[in-house]
Amino acid sequence: MTDIAAIEAAAQRMAGHVRETPLLNAPLLDRAFGRRIFVKAECLQVTGSFKARGGWSAVSALSEAARKRGVIAYSSGNHAQGVAYAAAAHASPCVILMPSDAPQVKIANTRSYGAEVVLYDRATTDRDALGADLSAKRGLTLIKPFDDPMVIAGQGTVGLELSRQTVAAGITKAEVFVCCGGGGLASGIALALEHHAPGLTVRTAEPEGFDDMARSLTSGKHEKNARISGSICDAILTPTPGKLTFPILQRLAGTGAVVTDDQALQAVALAFTHLRIVLEPGGAAALAAALFTPDLPDTVVAVATGGNVDPEVFRTALKRFG
Amino acid sequence: MTDIAAIEAAAQRMAGHVRETPLLNAPLLDRAFGRRIFVKAECLQVTGSFKARGGWSAVSALSEAARKRGVIAYSSGNHAQGVAYAAAAHASPCVILMPSDAPQVKIANTRSYGAEVVLYDRATTDRDALGADLSAKRGLTLIKPFDDPMVIAGQGTVGLELSRQTVAAGITKAEVFVCCGGGGLASGIALALEHHAPGLTVRTAEPEGFDDMARSLTSGKHEKNARISGSICDAILTPTPGKLTFPILQRLAGTGAVVTDDQALQAVALAFTHLRIVLEPGGAAALAAALFTPDLPDTVVAVATGGNVDPEVFRTALKRFG
Repeated sequence: MTDIAAIEAAAQRMAGHVRETPLLNAPLLDRAFGRRIFVKAECLQVTGSFKARGGWSAVSALSEAARKRGVIAYSSGNHAQGVAYAAAAHASPCVILMPSDAPQVKIANTRSYGAEVVLYDRATTDRDALGADLSAKRGLTLIKPFDDPMVIAGQGTVGLELSRQTVAAGITKAEVFVCCGGGGLASGIALALEHHAPGLTVRTAEPEGFDDMARSLTSGKHEKNARISGSICDAILTPTPGKLTFPILQRLAGTGAVVTDDQALQAVALAFTHLRIVLEPGGAAALAAALFTPDLPDTVVAVATGGNVDPEVFRTALKRFG
Repeated sequence: MTDIAAIEAAAQRMAGHVRETPLLNAPLLDRAFGRRIFVKAECLQVTGSFKARGGWSAVSALSEAARKRGVIAYSSGNHAQGVAYAAAAHASPCVILMPSDAPQVKIANTRSYGAEVVLYDRATTDRDALGADLSAKRGLTLIKPFDDPMVIAGQGTVGLELSRQTVAAGITKAEVFVCCGGGGLASGIALALEHHAPGLTVRTAEPEGFDDMARSLTSGKHEKNARISGSICDAILTPTPGKLTFPILQRLAGTGAVVTDDQALQAVALAFTHLRIVLEPGGAAALAAALFTPDLPDTVVAVATGGNVDPEVFRTALKRFG
């Protein structure tokens, strides 16, 4: 199980290799939306997303022998880059399974970090089975994207930083929106905030049609999405909440928020104009929730999780909402 | 005269109001260009550029009576926003003279900070004379964009941060490229580095056709540009080096670098892809110099000065170079 000690140990292991990202805000954005909006800019993280934290945490926790055999991960792109970055730094061989419809920039970057990329068809292949098979054959350690205690601990370091940064900004009470796929980041942050900033409440943010976590938090059981692809928020499309992450969020998170693809694209454009950061649509879901969810409190925080976006998608966001 | 004590005093006055910006880098960008490239992301500064520093430094140094009468500034946009932000926070009336061809986003933002914007024609109006006239009539204090000791001191706080951040990154020797209009930022940084990081050398970066500083550093006297507009790098088009800034740079700076508009646009696209920050072309000139100048050392730093860019210009950069 991941606890606050595991998160603090992960922070120790990643010091000097993973960046403390800034907590940004913009007076003109606050004024336009009538509340204080703070953005934790994980798009500025090494590899362009928070996934470098979980990847580093997991790879750095392996035994010397396991690191030498290598690691394997499956990912639509950001976890791939996080694990590839960490593996390269630990001189650990790295195989990444990626869906063939992942953004080209993520596939190219993952290869650039030195990983061997294996593409698969998202509709016809069981990536868990494929990963387990390759892992067994080559003696690789499978690093799951969210349902792994060391990955959750790594993502939780975002919460450690947030708890310090919100104190420095004079924030004692806020809703903290977190882009949510399987819930690794949201659950890690929730654990850190429970310990260090109990006035801050995590709320998951998901794309319309892929709101398995929001529905699961309401029903109390693992709900599934009807589709497995079809949102522009490619980074956070997962079929159902994680086995480890869901109980943590059941205990600690507020109601899940749901945003449309257009709201995510609008958040991408607003982050461009007011914060001068580059977000991918899935990485802007939390900001979209912090802007467009009804009945929000005076102060909201959005974790902007990633910025690995194809230029064409970004140009569309600017053309439509810039 | 601006000295290290003035820069450190400015840093004290702006604490809590002006942000310490991160020093970013990207392994894949380093690999592509064969050197270590660090980017000081001043586009993440409050108001979207380093100009908030100089503005805050100048306004906060005024007497209570002068602040009550108000301030005036002339600027193509970033200095305007910096001064408007600082004036609003000090409850000081603020008039901004802006060229009518300044980017719409900069004019709109300056008004949003509460300033009164007066537009003028860049080709037919002497902005210095207009500013002096308005200033005399209303008792406003003119805050010049670069040739003001308090403004230079404020911009120099970038150098204080850089000296700490480069030590933390293990950098003891590097060329530090700084986007250069009148030289306020470059001279302030040079003074701070002289004191705190003598292994780091400032080099100015200017657009082709507007390389007055580079030519002046070579000839030893104030050279003028043939044109006053016509580069996409609108933020850094000034006719000639400042009276205060030039002697500082003569003493401390290396050879000036010159970049083409296309190189600046390419740097905008590379910063999008690898660093996930939004730069305006003039704010990317230093990064362009750090990428494309011949005979560079192993380690270079670029100060990415601003990110207030019209969406159309950014889309063009991505379409051509993304």
